[in-house]
Amino acid sequence: MSTIKVAIVGATGETGSSIEITALARPESLHKLANAELKTRGVKVMPADLNGPQEKLVGLLAGIDVVISAIFFGSLADEIPLANAAKIAGVKRFVQSAFMVVTPPRGVVDFREKKEDILNHIQKIRLPYTYIDAGWWYQLTLPRLPSGRLDHALPSTQPEQVIGADGLVPSALVDIRDVGRYVAKIVADPRTLNKRVHVYNEVFTRNEVYDLVEELSGEKLERKYITEEEIMSRIEEARSDLQVDPTSLQALGALTTYQLLHSWGIRGDNTPEYAAYLGYLDGKELYPDFKYTRFEDYVKAALDGAAKGVYQIRK
Amino acid sequence: MSTIKVAIVGATGETGSSIEITALARPESLHKLANAELKTRGVKVMPADLNGPQEKLVGLLAGIDVVISAIFFGSLADEIPLANAAKIAGVKRFVQSAFMVVTPPRGVVDFREKKEDILNHIQKIRLPYTYIDAGWWYQLTLPRLPSGRLDHALPSTQPEQVIGADGLVPSALVDIRDVGRYVAKIVADPRTLNKRVHVYNEVFTRNEVYDLVEELSGEKLERKYITEEEIMSRIEEARSDLQVDPTSLQALGALTTYQLLHSWGIRGDNTPEYAAYLGYLDGKELYPDFKYTRFEDYVKAALDGAAKGVYQIRK
Repeated sequence: MSTIKVAIVGATGETGSSIEITALARPESLHKLANAELKTRGVKVMPADLNGPQEKLVGLLAGIDVVISAIFFGSLADEIPLANAAKIAGVKRFVQSAFMVVTPPRGVVDFREKKEDILNHIQKIRLPYTYIDAGWWYQLTLPRLPSGRLDHALPSTQPEQVIGADGLVPSALVDIRDVGRYVAKIVADPRTLNKRVHVYNEVFTRNEVYDLVEELSGEKLERKYITEEEIMSRIEEARSDLQVDPTSLQALGALTTYQLLHSWGIRGDNTPEYAAYLGYLDGKELYPDFKYTRFEDYVKAALDGAAKGVYQIRK
Repeated sequence: MSTIKVAIVGATGETGSSIEITALARPESLHKLANAELKTRGVKVMPADLNGPQEKLVGLLAGIDVVISAIFFGSLADEIPLANAAKIAGVKRFVQSAFMVVTPPRGVVDFREKKEDILNHIQKIRLPYTYIDAGWWYQLTLPRLPSGRLDHALPSTQPEQVIGADGLVPSALVDIRDVGRYVAKIVADPRTLNKRVHVYNEVFTRNEVYDLVEELSGEKLERKYITEEEIMSRIEEARSDLQVDPTSLQALGALTTYQLLHSWGIRGDNTPEYAAYLGYLDGKELYPDFKYTRFEDYVKAALDGAAKGVYQIRK
């Protein structure tokens, strides 16, 4: 097949950095360390102001086959001008940002509704698209060990570690390092055009995760279970904090964290079965030979000190 | 295959009456002439208050396989308690009301957004469903002839007859008398479970409709074209009328009529191609042998005085 020209918007975030190609960056972040790193890997980094003049954006996207957005989940509305420009430029496939757990399109996770709004806009302007959800990251899945042995692999701002309901709720997991390879397959695949696609590596309950980490580490974990009522009250708390200060990233983070936990940890939305019900194509059926990192191997590497975490403040 | 038990809610409307089986009716409309007619055809008519106690509704739906809603498009929100009860009762498939033209899920037709909200609620509670769009009715498609020869087949409250844009926009048409037969096939078909389905008979532009009616009638038609700008200004007018009086059925009717015309007559959303882009299954592929009334035959029958119209006030 001929070369596919891909533009990635927001390539230096956690998701974007696992995909390779041409990067559109906010002018003010052009000189970020991560963009310099992209350049050393041969990626063309171009300045792009998503809220600037449309014709400039159209010009940047001319000749691009696939646009992959990996912008911050708090700025998803910026995808509207990006999609409009992509439509005019004749882009052949648009991929929205925030690959994540499967949730209902509306009514459970606020920012998921924003994604659906943007998808509905894409559909209104008839821009070819692929909508991708890609599992809950291994890198956000490890429990903290009493010895601190896994701390190097945990996010810097690690939220309180709690287990939804009885710990028996299954959830689809992925290694973030596999996401880019899944996306590369998906955007080159005619079967996924104008479809929703669900990719993931393995399905685990929280109890199974804890059991596995205990078995492989030889340490005993404390298990703190949280009820649906308790999660709902934290969601309400975060929502009222956000009403007081709509710009509070902390309140937005708390709201999103607990709404996502409600979805994957209590309701059990993040499963291949629910994705199928919602009409997603299944990555296991599309790419049965895809080689991915097994969760057990990720845990072993983390215990050996060889896992890289996400959302870590660079020292 | 074993007998499928179907309950229809709102069976006496224009869509509902083309499907046969068990009917749930509002207690206050139990004694409507149309319900009496349903009874003479062997249909069980049961009173059901959609906003009444949930356990009563659940009781009514116990043992029902398929619920088909055909309630008034202005009361779609009543489908929320109906869907909740259907979920508890173990209904195996739920079909929303307002089979209609294919439009974008959001941003073009207000009441289509309400349908999408209800679908999103259905998906949140994981109720098995099929979402059906079924074309623009032949019965709303005929132009008025100068001689008055087609008047008997036109709706009583015939809106102004205008042609969107240049009259070259294709739109999928259906004979309303075929809709029930399509729906009967769809709800018995495992391929359509948890899917969107688009059924239609034939695709015509407005110019082709006018040409055909001129040719078959021998009369000359006036063609009044309307621009997108003019339609948008009428939509805004209806919207502000509705803001002044949110209960005005006339304003709601005007808003809906012009928004639908914008979608199928200008944007060209009501086509098999756009339905495919939106992920609908195509009725022509599902049921290639389906015998339907051709539009030409419907026009001939109408010219012979043998067509029954819709939305006609009974004299």
